[in-house]
Amino acid sequence: MDQLFSNKLIKEPRKADNIEFRALEITDFEKGFSELLQQLTEAKFEKSKFLERFIQMKNQPDTYYIIVAEDITTNRICATGCLFVEKKFIRSCGTCAHIEDIVVDSRYRGKNLGLKVIEHLKHIGNTLGCYKLILDCDEKNVKFYEKCGFERKGVQLSCYNTTIIPKAKL
Amino acid sequence: MDQLFSNKLIKEPRKADNIEFRALEITDFEKGFSELLQQLTEAKFEKSKFLERFIQMKNQPDTYYIIVAEDITTNRICATGCLFVEKKFIRSCGTCAHIEDIVVDSRYRGKNLGLKVIEHLKHIGNTLGCYKLILDCDEKNVKFYEKCGFERKGVQLSCYNTTIIPKAKL
Repeated sequence: MDQLFSNKLIKEPRKADNIEFRALEITDFEKGFSELLQQLTEAKFEKSKFLERFIQMKNQPDTYYIIVAEDITTNRICATGCLFVEKKFIRSCGTCAHIEDIVVDSRYRGKNLGLKVIEHLKHIGNTLGCYKLILDCDEKNVKFYEKCGFERKGVQLSCYNTTIIPKAKL
Repeated sequence: MDQLFSNKLIKEPRKADNIEFRALEITDFEKGFSELLQQLTEAKFEKSKFLERFIQMKNQPDTYYIIVAEDITTNRICATGCLFVEKKFIRSCGTCAHIEDIVVDSRYRGKNLGLKVIEHLKHIGNTLGCYKLILDCDEKNVKFYEKCGFERKGVQLSCYNTTIIPKAKL
């Protein structure tokens, strides 16, 4: 129950230059997972909440694939990304992989870690047989994702749930 | 086990002008669900595949919310839309609702059915406490979704799994 999914799904080599790519583990709360996500957006949560969410994700098999990159010299998480699999009826009851919540610790930028996170997630999505991978990003990040093999497809729109915004302190 | 989720989640009134909005049901294969999806994209599947996928979605609780609009004079499905809920660590371990696979039968256009599908899905997402709803669309459909209360947020990119395209006959 320690890992969100099997590391066998992760492309080899998983380790290089003191960085190890692997599935999210239940002990990653202590390794700075929440602090890293806070570089992306509001992401404060207690350990108990982390464990609860981890177990919920794990109990939904073949769905959540969160990878992390750990600096094995400091035992801190320095990058992460999520791939989750949507079951569909279209495309002969196919599956579509969504890439979400990519973040690289600001102290580790310029080392191609973002590119590696995406490559690892693409490998997982392809291995699982998803007919496509999709992601949304700001205009300023489009070039980066094009380098990763993605193509501009459409427009992302959003609608915030105003009834809960005050509570969630967005 | 007949319904994907409870109709109690659907905003009232569910019925008007001989059109009933409700959760996807296991008998909807016979009511033209696959044929309707084919107006959107490749969506041919056998009844056995439909049942298998229906059960998989149902077994993933609090995740898949596919609604249909049935013409109660013909007992055929004339519109559908999917909301699925992604569990996250960000936003205090919040949930994000994705809107996917919206289609209105070409013979039923001009009756505001698309708008109603989106309103129903928004209601479900808000009721479930999702901190935001997101969707991707072509540039030509942005105006429609803005009318539905969505705002332009970013760019959608995609990457097709070329290793399976021949098999899936995309």
